[in-house]
Amino acid sequence: MHATRLSINLATVRQQWNLREAVEACARLGIPAVDPWRDQVAAIGLDASVRAIKDAGMKVSGYCRGGMFPATDQAGKQAAIDDNRRAIDEASVLGAECLVLVVGGLPKGSRDIAGARRMVEDGIGAVLPYARAHNMPLAIEPLHPMYAADRACVNTLAQALDLCEALGDGVGVAIDAYHVWWDPDLAAQIARAGAAKRILAYHICDWLVPTRDLLLDRGMIGDGVIDLTGTGAMIENAGYAGFIEVEIFSAANWWKRPGDEVLRTCIERFNRLMAAKT
Amino acid sequence: MHATRLSINLATVRQQWNLREAVEACARLGIPAVDPWRDQVAAIGLDASVRAIKDAGMKVSGYCRGGMFPATDQAGKQAAIDDNRRAIDEASVLGAECLVLVVGGLPKGSRDIAGARRMVEDGIGAVLPYARAHNMPLAIEPLHPMYAADRACVNTLAQALDLCEALGDGVGVAIDAYHVWWDPDLAAQIARAGAAKRILAYHICDWLVPTRDLLLDRGMIGDGVIDLTGTGAMIENAGYAGFIEVEIFSAANWWKRPGDEVLRTCIERFNRLMAAKT
Repeated sequence: MHATRLSINLATVRQQWNLREAVEACARLGIPAVDPWRDQVAAIGLDASVRAIKDAGMKVSGYCRGGMFPATDQAGKQAAIDDNRRAIDEASVLGAECLVLVVGGLPKGSRDIAGARRMVEDGIGAVLPYARAHNMPLAIEPLHPMYAADRACVNTLAQALDLCEALGDGVGVAIDAYHVWWDPDLAAQIARAGAAKRILAYHICDWLVPTRDLLLDRGMIGDGVIDLTGTGAMIENAGYAGFIEVEIFSAANWWKRPGDEVLRTCIERFNRLMAAKT
Repeated sequence: MHATRLSINLATVRQQWNLREAVEACARLGIPAVDPWRDQVAAIGLDASVRAIKDAGMKVSGYCRGGMFPATDQAGKQAAIDDNRRAIDEASVLGAECLVLVVGGLPKGSRDIAGARRMVEDGIGAVLPYARAHNMPLAIEPLHPMYAADRACVNTLAQALDLCEALGDGVGVAIDAYHVWWDPDLAAQIARAGAAKRILAYHICDWLVPTRDLLLDRGMIGDGVIDLTGTGAMIENAGYAGFIEVEIFSAANWWKRPGDEVLRTCIERFNRLMAAKT
């Protein structure tokens, strides 16, 4: 079976390979798309990254990541806006389908999460004209509430979609099953996202029991408790037909294995998941 | 200043003292209430626990904990119901103001969180007549979504209040700031809980950045990023005038300090928090 809708988020093999090596390995295994991170692009340079992706005939399902808008002062906010514009430039050159936004948490020393959320809306609003001019959709990724303080104060799909409605065209959501699987309102919000044509990306990995680290203990598809079959069906029924991106941060397990083994496992589990739904 | 509304959840000093020692220490420091855990009561026996609490003139703001309803089979579900009835008996004898429910996560091997949630509703429904007959309010505690798999599949205040409405009288919510602080809908749901007279308990500690363990790295009041002043005001405005319970699981810090130091710090930080609101 050919994994025609599989994309590999390159964080999944970040400890094993640089961007060119990772892209070439994906191509060898017939994986049609990747999602690189900015530091991986910076490490070999933007031009070399574009060449590696073109040489491999690889699609780019997204680019990770813009965001991180809240700041303690105006200079910090402006720096974030400028940085997001550069991320849009890079995403355009790479041919990415969207720029994923991890919006940022509380500014240093702050306990004002409502204020941080206003900063996020203002920040996205400030870069959105630039994104629209570059035809680069911005994908707000609601992050699990355990990241509300330090990574993203947008923590539910409902909240992300409210933001989209407030901001207008050119912005949508990246739905990562890891971040949203627990949400009692998930089915309704995925349907809402689909009806509004806001689903720009769908990411998967698995929630391990126990989870030993808040950030770096994500599981391979099938090794945890997320109903990825059910969630995938919701996404499909909502009209999303794009890439399904595997993104696994796993310091103690998958980052320690050979990259080829990780990719082959992703393909095998992905194909099993796709087969299960029929 | 006298901490007249302070209660100490005895998990906060569980590594330092048994129940009698903890209650006596609280009494010496003028703390008017505690919330013991079932294993702490079992360790010295129910009768000895009742005596310790009576001897100290201590109020019991709640009893931790019932719940854990989902199970793989009928025998498991019945065992949970039976165990919750025993917890109600104990809570009554102890004079607790409510029995706190940590409702349980996914049954072993399950990925069906919606099913687990139905089991929770069925389980609470099954013990509710017994709780009502004993005049023991059941306090559903929505837990942070990071515990959805293994501790509680009720993860937002909205969800807990929906459950309360479905179940009727004799059930309410225990609101723990640690579990709900991130919720974009928090203010509205606290107001809703107050209007429905469903707030049975209010617990506080703090969210540390970084948080190094999903369960045992909770912070002392004031050491983290939760706006406890603002959340406390919401709770107050919602009409709750009961005890404010400090509950801190802290394997690497507070559980390693002398119990008296922990209690004195709780009192100092609690009084500072109360003063800040005026």
